[in-house]
Amino acid sequence: MSGEQDWKALCAARKQRQLEQIPKEWTISLPPDNQRNVLDIPSTCGLLSPRELEITDTVNVDILLDKLRTAQWSSVEVTTAFYKRAIIAQQLTNCLTEIFIDRALARAKEVDDYLRTHGKPIGPLHGLPISLKDQFCIKGLETIMGYAGWIGRVADRDSVLVEILYECGAVPFVRTNVPQTLMWGETYNHVFGRTTNPYNRYMTCGGSSGGEGALVALHGSPLGVGTDIGGSVRIPSAFCGLYGLRPSYERLPYYGAVNAQEGQESISSVLGPMTNSLEGVRAFTKAIIDAKPWRKDPLCVRKEWSEREYALGDHGGQGARLCFAIMWDNGILKPHPPLRRAMEMTKKALEAAGHTGMITTPMLCARHCIGCLTDVLPRAEKIFAADDGLDLLKDCALSGEPLIQTMSPDTDSHEYALDEPMARTIVGERRHLTAYELWELHKEKRALRKSHLDHWEATAAKTGTGRPVDAIISPVAAYASCPHGCNSDCFYTAFCNFLNYTTSVFPVTFADKTLDGRVSPHQFYNKEDEAVYKLYDPELWHGMPVALQLIGRTHEEEGVIAMTEVVDKALKAAKTKA
Amino acid sequence: MSGEQDWKALCAARKQRQLEQIPKEWTISLPPDNQRNVLDIPSTCGLLSPRELEITDTVNVDILLDKLRTAQWSSVEVTTAFYKRAIIAQQLTNCLTEIFIDRALARAKEVDDYLRTHGKPIGPLHGLPISLKDQFCIKGLETIMGYAGWIGRVADRDSVLVEILYECGAVPFVRTNVPQTLMWGETYNHVFGRTTNPYNRYMTCGGSSGGEGALVALHGSPLGVGTDIGGSVRIPSAFCGLYGLRPSYERLPYYGAVNAQEGQESISSVLGPMTNSLEGVRAFTKAIIDAKPWRKDPLCVRKEWSEREYALGDHGGQGARLCFAIMWDNGILKPHPPLRRAMEMTKKALEAAGHTGMITTPMLCARHCIGCLTDVLPRAEKIFAADDGLDLLKDCALSGEPLIQTMSPDTDSHEYALDEPMARTIVGERRHLTAYELWELHKEKRALRKSHLDHWEATAAKTGTGRPVDAIISPVAAYASCPHGCNSDCFYTAFCNFLNYTTSVFPVTFADKTLDGRVSPHQFYNKEDEAVYKLYDPELWHGMPVALQLIGRTHEEEGVIAMTEVVDKALKAAKTKA
Repeated sequence: MSGEQDWKALCAARKQRQLEQIPKEWTISLPPDNQRNVLDIPSTCGLLSPRELEITDTVNVDILLDKLRTAQWSSVEVTTAFYKRAIIAQQLTNCLTEIFIDRALARAKEVDDYLRTHGKPIGPLHGLPISLKDQFCIKGLETIMGYAGWIGRVADRDSVLVEILYECGAVPFVRTNVPQTLMWGETYNHVFGRTTNPYNRYMTCGGSSGGEGALVALHGSPLGVGTDIGGSVRIPSAFCGLYGLRPSYERLPYYGAVNAQEGQESISSVLGPMTNSLEGVRAFTKAIIDAKPWRKDPLCVRKEWSEREYALGDHGGQGARLCFAIMWDNGILKPHPPLRRAMEMTKKALEAAGHTGMITTPMLCARHCIGCLTDVLPRAEKIFAADDGLDLLKDCALSGEPLIQTMSPDTDSHEYALDEPMARTIVGERRHLTAYELWELHKEKRALRKSHLDHWEATAAKTGTGRPVDAIISPVAAYASCPHGCNSDCFYTAFCNFLNYTTSVFPVTFADKTLDGRVSPHQFYNKEDEAVYKLYDPELWHGMPVALQLIGRTHEEEGVIAMTEVVDKALKAAKTKA
Repeated sequence: MSGEQDWKALCAARKQRQLEQIPKEWTISLPPDNQRNVLDIPSTCGLLSPRELEITDTVNVDILLDKLRTAQWSSVEVTTAFYKRAIIAQQLTNCLTEIFIDRALARAKEVDDYLRTHGKPIGPLHGLPISLKDQFCIKGLETIMGYAGWIGRVADRDSVLVEILYECGAVPFVRTNVPQTLMWGETYNHVFGRTTNPYNRYMTCGGSSGGEGALVALHGSPLGVGTDIGGSVRIPSAFCGLYGLRPSYERLPYYGAVNAQEGQESISSVLGPMTNSLEGVRAFTKAIIDAKPWRKDPLCVRKEWSEREYALGDHGGQGARLCFAIMWDNGILKPHPPLRRAMEMTKKALEAAGHTGMITTPMLCARHCIGCLTDVLPRAEKIFAADDGLDLLKDCALSGEPLIQTMSPDTDSHEYALDEPMARTIVGERRHLTAYELWELHKEKRALRKSHLDHWEATAAKTGTGRPVDAIISPVAAYASCPHGCNSDCFYTAFCNFLNYTTSVFPVTFADKTLDGRVSPHQFYNKEDEAVYKLYDPELWHGMPVALQLIGRTHEEEGVIAMTEVVDKALKAAKTKA
């Protein structure tokens, strides 16, 4: 394989094969390319029956699971409904990679047969169709992960997650698009192309789990699984208005999934759910942990699902007054007005629910916030670049495709552009590190994690609850999505990966041009902060979902989910009242 | 600082300062240097009163804790008794580094005062003197860790372990000797010299936690804390006849301890207890975990002590028939006759206690045993050598002292010697690896861990219990200690570090020249196997303690301790019967 024509031809052929996997009768009349918001198309295009709309519009995963478990809905009909809607989503946002309808429906039938024969469900995710980021290998299917050179790479074994999903009774039914290398907060590669945001196709769905973001936002899947090494579950969850979870390293089973920079263990990628309900986050996380993933993944932490922790046992118990810190601004990039409003809404809602006493300084204190730029982020970037790109270049070299250098589209690109995103410049001189240099970085990483931990613990003196701050609430990015090519940073998310904090995402509101007008310029923190400020356009953002993240402690999945439920409930109560 | 005289003078001065810390009235009449077994000296030398002997001969840590908690014995008298015995041990085996009597007794008094004032103990280790390997920094004291260049390095902060020991009410009271670099299974450095085995001072106490081994064997401490990256808790525990535990990575808090190759996170060093009773292992491990070490060590796994797992909840419940695999021989070095007999004793004792159905092939199967040589060990050695010794050489360069190349004493060395220990030769070409090469090693490590895990899980089909093999029982080394300079390998221990298996050590018996005669030569596996075979001398080994290890799963500290209790009980029952 050599020459530009070769890899381009390879990609075109693979894309054509993907097109052929779509049943003719599932194709829809497409809206014009310049129609930005496509959220209504699934219900107006006519492909889905009223019952299929009822099924796919059921966002509460617990209700879906209940209907499936009690055979009110069969897995075949649920899977068919979501598959049809996923194919609509694909036509609208280009969110899918692997399409395997027959196989998924055969699995759904097997699940239905089991329930009929045994009178009980296979497991806690019985019959539920689940979409997977294009890393989770399924035996007999390709896993291309955005590399032309990986076309034709057929898995000879299921990844551990897929094995456990089968044990739980789930129906893996599509795989979803990613950026080449996985190291972008947007979603574009040479094989499957670009995925767009269904709220506004001129905007990015985020990345790297961007296919999941667009798909789940269109209700083309009740629950998807993404991965996160710097924000890759949280950014698309936030940009697409979903709930999501970045668990701690090695709580959920990653073994057997393909990855970029496999073997890089300094900051580990993790997998997590992306879905339209917090019930989905809890159901998925609990089901996978209850399956004892350490039986199959040697890296998985042997820690059972803790009902004590889920009952907020480490946070004063159920109903206790919680104390949240709000990171209004990380001192690197000032959040856009819709984010500011979302934080204010959340603060008010929490206060109305009795959770007063919030420390409202940035992060936990200015030092630890600014520390993200001066301490944490350069080290995270250095770790990601420790092989000077060798791993990524090797995978590109397999086909001859070039390493993608920008997510800016060739056409229709936004006027905003940074000559050089800060993330690249803060690394400084970039070269292949030695093992010893990596060990030095690890020492620094440990010291920083310790410093943050001590600082967090010390807040106990100020919260009034007798406990340290229970969780931190912050933006996921300085903006609620952005035009393609503009999402250059992960400054609000990557420090959680570096510090290994369990972090959830929850939707709060939608950008509203009447509420979120332009604000006067502040003293810019840096060049990128200025560019981000100038980027904001109330008209362009109008209607985009605005989400926040809730940051808890390492290995505190149960507590973080439970605290997110507290926040979500408070927000819903506040909306009902308003 | 330059020149040989300088670092030698520095070491001599420091050693002299150590000598001066010993109260004149605690010096004893030393036995002749060629008296090999010195175990009786503490009770015959006249320094300890009958009550002090009663205290220090109380090996069951639960009893000690009970007497302290109920003020039957004060911490001051218990600490004084153990301190005097530790100083005797020092004079006999050279096992100590830091001696700080006044400080320890002041702490003991504080603990006694607390109990008197508050009517309740400070914590679960109330009043217990605990010895620490020369890595666990104590504020205001030097931590020299066997490097001349670290003399004068005074800690400005307690290590997290020490902080938690204080919270638990314990009395850290001495620190203990290590080999230079910590990467040896013996104990010798230029500052404090060599530590010997009190069962036979011609033999090594093992290493790298060898000071703890000798000290605890002489009842100079009721409980010590060592560290283990390739066998460093288990080898001295076995050579000195103690119980010990190598927990999984990051279950117990290592933060703030100094280390060799700090920042090397591919195979993590762990800390664990070394003591004369299994009660001590349990009490220490449970106390530290109950203190929620993740509050202070950002790397610690947030997993509470599980009474369910301790009640063998993952192994059929209390009283269930267990199935052990016995690794008679790892196919690299054939164990000496005393080890073979210890395994046979253990097998018989377990069978007599109803735990039949043991798979008696080596390890779990021959492939995975031989795999230790061909797969696991070279990769472990490559990881330890990934910086081509840069870290170790830097620490030597601080003073100009040379890197120690052999543990053979200058005089009185045994005829056995290997030109080149296998551990060094199996690495192959040795050079400083790049970050990418380290990532490649991690990929291989993960695949090997997965292969072993799958193999272990698959034994469920053969055990007859419905579960996989509950634990593996194996030698800790091919010999029960050996002459100084001869312990060149860690082939029976390092694979547990690589695979991150929780592993305990338990004493079984003593070598006996009438029972453990020479056996005919087997077909030697390799040059080192031949040398080890030839090394065996029933007369020399007579009376040495013989211990085995019990290997369980990752993060299974509770279950491993409970299963070791089952084995220990069975062995004691068998001895009573015999």
